[in-house]
Amino acid sequence: MKIVFVGAGNLATRLSADMNRTGMHILQIYSRTAQHAETLAKIYGCSWTNQLDKIVLDADLYVFALKDAVLPEVLAKMQPNNGFWVHTAGSVPMQIFEKYTSRYGVLYPLQTFSKERMVDFNLIPFFIEANTPENELVLCKIARAMSEKVQTLSSEKRKILHLAAVFACNFANHMYTLAGEILEEQALSFDVLLPLINETAAKVQIMSPKKAQTGPAVRYDENVIRKHLDMLSNPDTKVLYELISKSIYKTKIDE
Amino acid sequence: MKIVFVGAGNLATRLSADMNRTGMHILQIYSRTAQHAETLAKIYGCSWTNQLDKIVLDADLYVFALKDAVLPEVLAKMQPNNGFWVHTAGSVPMQIFEKYTSRYGVLYPLQTFSKERMVDFNLIPFFIEANTPENELVLCKIARAMSEKVQTLSSEKRKILHLAAVFACNFANHMYTLAGEILEEQALSFDVLLPLINETAAKVQIMSPKKAQTGPAVRYDENVIRKHLDMLSNPDTKVLYELISKSIYKTKIDE
Repeated sequence: MKIVFVGAGNLATRLSADMNRTGMHILQIYSRTAQHAETLAKIYGCSWTNQLDKIVLDADLYVFALKDAVLPEVLAKMQPNNGFWVHTAGSVPMQIFEKYTSRYGVLYPLQTFSKERMVDFNLIPFFIEANTPENELVLCKIARAMSEKVQTLSSEKRKILHLAAVFACNFANHMYTLAGEILEEQALSFDVLLPLINETAAKVQIMSPKKAQTGPAVRYDENVIRKHLDMLSNPDTKVLYELISKSIYKTKIDE
Repeated sequence: MKIVFVGAGNLATRLSADMNRTGMHILQIYSRTAQHAETLAKIYGCSWTNQLDKIVLDADLYVFALKDAVLPEVLAKMQPNNGFWVHTAGSVPMQIFEKYTSRYGVLYPLQTFSKERMVDFNLIPFFIEANTPENELVLCKIARAMSEKVQTLSSEKRKILHLAAVFACNFANHMYTLAGEILEEQALSFDVLLPLINETAAKVQIMSPKKAQTGPAVRYDENVIRKHLDMLSNPDTKVLYELISKSIYKTKIDE
């Protein structure tokens, strides 16, 4: 299985690493930014390019791991070839490939990736989709080499997953950022929150987040909420505090 | 060390369990709700009451683990005694005790507690405060019996910690809840998010949340953001999506 990565960002970095680990052959890395392509290619001792027309044509699999907004223009400039084309985006329908190639699909690992952080791919749920049952089988085999948790999912459902992931990951992480800013202003260390952050994530592994919910907003404790609002110096953070508290309370009373 | 718990909620349940585990003697449980007091007292084979004037007077330590709003009225009705009185609230100043007793302090474990979930107290940061150096020493010894991480902290700084904890824990958990609601509407299982939630919390143990931030809001990817807003059926959740995305983007460009 010879693979070309189109993209060299966080996801491309981690996914190519795990494909390489499981014995697949990374043939070439493309990135618009030469330095990104070169850095990643060096790890596999493979070729790299920052020009779309220099992408090799004889790979088995082309993985498009790009920002959603960039994908259409890149696809429009790709040279035709006989490889299997897949993207890794939650919110982009599989049909984006239709005009350009005959074998295509989606390989969506539901995880947050940073270049420098290893993750255990075996625990990552992979959602796949392909334009024919044969291609689905190929893609399933590729995903199964990395993870135990592979399932097929339509583009329609995958975009729902992506939206949910934005809340569970991106937005939860931003709550950590806001907490860090509050502590920083008072010269308190973010590290004191780490056991709490861990436990908050660990709790929902065994109980629903509704059941796990604690804090002043659950009972809409106006006394505490008012004090907290007074303490917040950033007006945007103040608005968020109030709206999220109301949303927590509403969830509780709707139960 | 004979201890009375005034309160039998989540925190009282877990804290009394760990005090009991480390050899302290739980003497009595008070709760306004008889059933809550009785349930907790049964675990230690100790007495319980739902009447403040039946609280025993010969304990060494009285732990007030109550909602912030309830604490003043309970204190006003307590019989005087010679015990050491402490509360466990992040946002209540230590001086609340001043009018009622001469030996007092605060024992604040920075963690989220649910009655039925055990937590490793050794990893929990305890923040203590007392009205005299002697009392601080007593409280420090009590906290050290449970945790390696004990430090003194003023009421002023403790309320900042509590505010930060609301973001890092209560609000992060609500993001999980909103994610779960989005999936539920489409008959998708919350469980697929668990590895992602775990990794999101694990990442900030080794890198700052600002550095760990991923997702469409980081680059304010209007294409994805607009699609996501269209998909959200709950108007409150829609507003939160937009404001949190803007806050993430603002954090990024302010770097």
